[in-house]
Amino acid sequence: MITSVQNAKIKELEKLNNARTRGETGLFLVEGPHLVTEARNLGLLVEAYSLEDKDGYTQVSDNVMRKICNTKTPVSEVGVVKIPSNKGLSDKVLILDTIQDPGNMGTIMRSARAFDFKTIILSDGCVDIYNDKVIRSSQGAIFKLNFIKGNLLDIIPTLEGYDVYGTDVVNGISIKEVNKNKKIAVVMGNEGNGVSKEVRNILKKNIYIPLNETESLNVGVAASIIMYELNK
Amino acid sequence: MITSVQNAKIKELEKLNNARTRGETGLFLVEGPHLVTEARNLGLLVEAYSLEDKDGYTQVSDNVMRKICNTKTPVSEVGVVKIPSNKGLSDKVLILDTIQDPGNMGTIMRSARAFDFKTIILSDGCVDIYNDKVIRSSQGAIFKLNFIKGNLLDIIPTLEGYDVYGTDVVNGISIKEVNKNKKIAVVMGNEGNGVSKEVRNILKKNIYIPLNETESLNVGVAASIIMYELNK
Repeated sequence: MITSVQNAKIKELEKLNNARTRGETGLFLVEGPHLVTEARNLGLLVEAYSLEDKDGYTQVSDNVMRKICNTKTPVSEVGVVKIPSNKGLSDKVLILDTIQDPGNMGTIMRSARAFDFKTIILSDGCVDIYNDKVIRSSQGAIFKLNFIKGNLLDIIPTLEGYDVYGTDVVNGISIKEVNKNKKIAVVMGNEGNGVSKEVRNILKKNIYIPLNETESLNVGVAASIIMYELNK
Repeated sequence: MITSVQNAKIKELEKLNNARTRGETGLFLVEGPHLVTEARNLGLLVEAYSLEDKDGYTQVSDNVMRKICNTKTPVSEVGVVKIPSNKGLSDKVLILDTIQDPGNMGTIMRSARAFDFKTIILSDGCVDIYNDKVIRSSQGAIFKLNFIKGNLLDIIPTLEGYDVYGTDVVNGISIKEVNKNKKIAVVMGNEGNGVSKEVRNILKKNIYIPLNETESLNVGVAASIIMYELNK
């Protein structure tokens, strides 16, 4: 049982709360029994820590657990998980331009998994997907998706063979009229500002969700409805 | 300009943060210029308070504004708004059984408005809809919907002429196969536990969203997709 926050291993784990360390090691932390078990079942778990003495876990004291985790509310288990390798582009791709709310990001992941948008391309301005709130609200979907992060102005032009759609309230075609049998990529924009001007400039087509009056939707909901509709 | 938190009027306003006072007065508070302006445009604004000296507002000092509001982050304007009277049942009705997350509740309201589910029936266990987080994430939709709150076991049997659907991952018919031309009421359940057993027992039909594998969706997303699909 590890009881010292000065333990070298614990200091290493704590560094995984830092995006740069995650990039260098290819590892991230997940909190709570549900996510640890799911990572184990998928063969992505490297090691696990628990407040209890049980098989397959290193036992740690309460203060050590708090040191490892980000959360103020104590968790009973923490897992170290491999960042899955890039599996190549799926036929349906979601592109996120500066999505900043962790809850929205997690919700979008969960829906992407449910509707077979297996690849998510993230702009540099998006919230860190290994943020603990994102992981929690993704409900395990984060383990099963393929992520590509970078400058959308560089990545979008490389999507050969895809119909790439922007989302716009007024312009474009209704999502009910899109040809679902093609390879499709959809760009969703920031919560307040929508898709950035630079990205809009390189998109030739837009889609919209038919809505009552001039209402708008939460971006997580909008992305989910679009993926639901475009899923064959 | 009101500068004293001991002012009788300010003490009255502060009490509107209490659900019981809202029930007795038929009034609630909204925070921020966007919501105050929208309430005014809809004829629901009773009075408004601002940190600035401007037409149509009573000016208050920073400490008074903080006293009125719930939020730790200071807001520039607060409005006192009439709770709209019950406008009768719409043809499409959403029923919420113990939805507890304020963000989910606000998101659901926003989608209900966009997809013409103008009536929302709330179980007694739902989060207070006049909670400031709910109001904020509803983005003004709260002004335009019809709310009924009570015991679902009493209310559901009174919905004559409606097809009342529960939502269930495995049983029932796909939302794509529902007859949209009828009067429809859909019951969405709690974030963790779904529709309560007692309510499930009085429902004869269930609908589901076709999903990849055994995934599930955030309840705000699920409610939104169902309303999108069932909106004629």
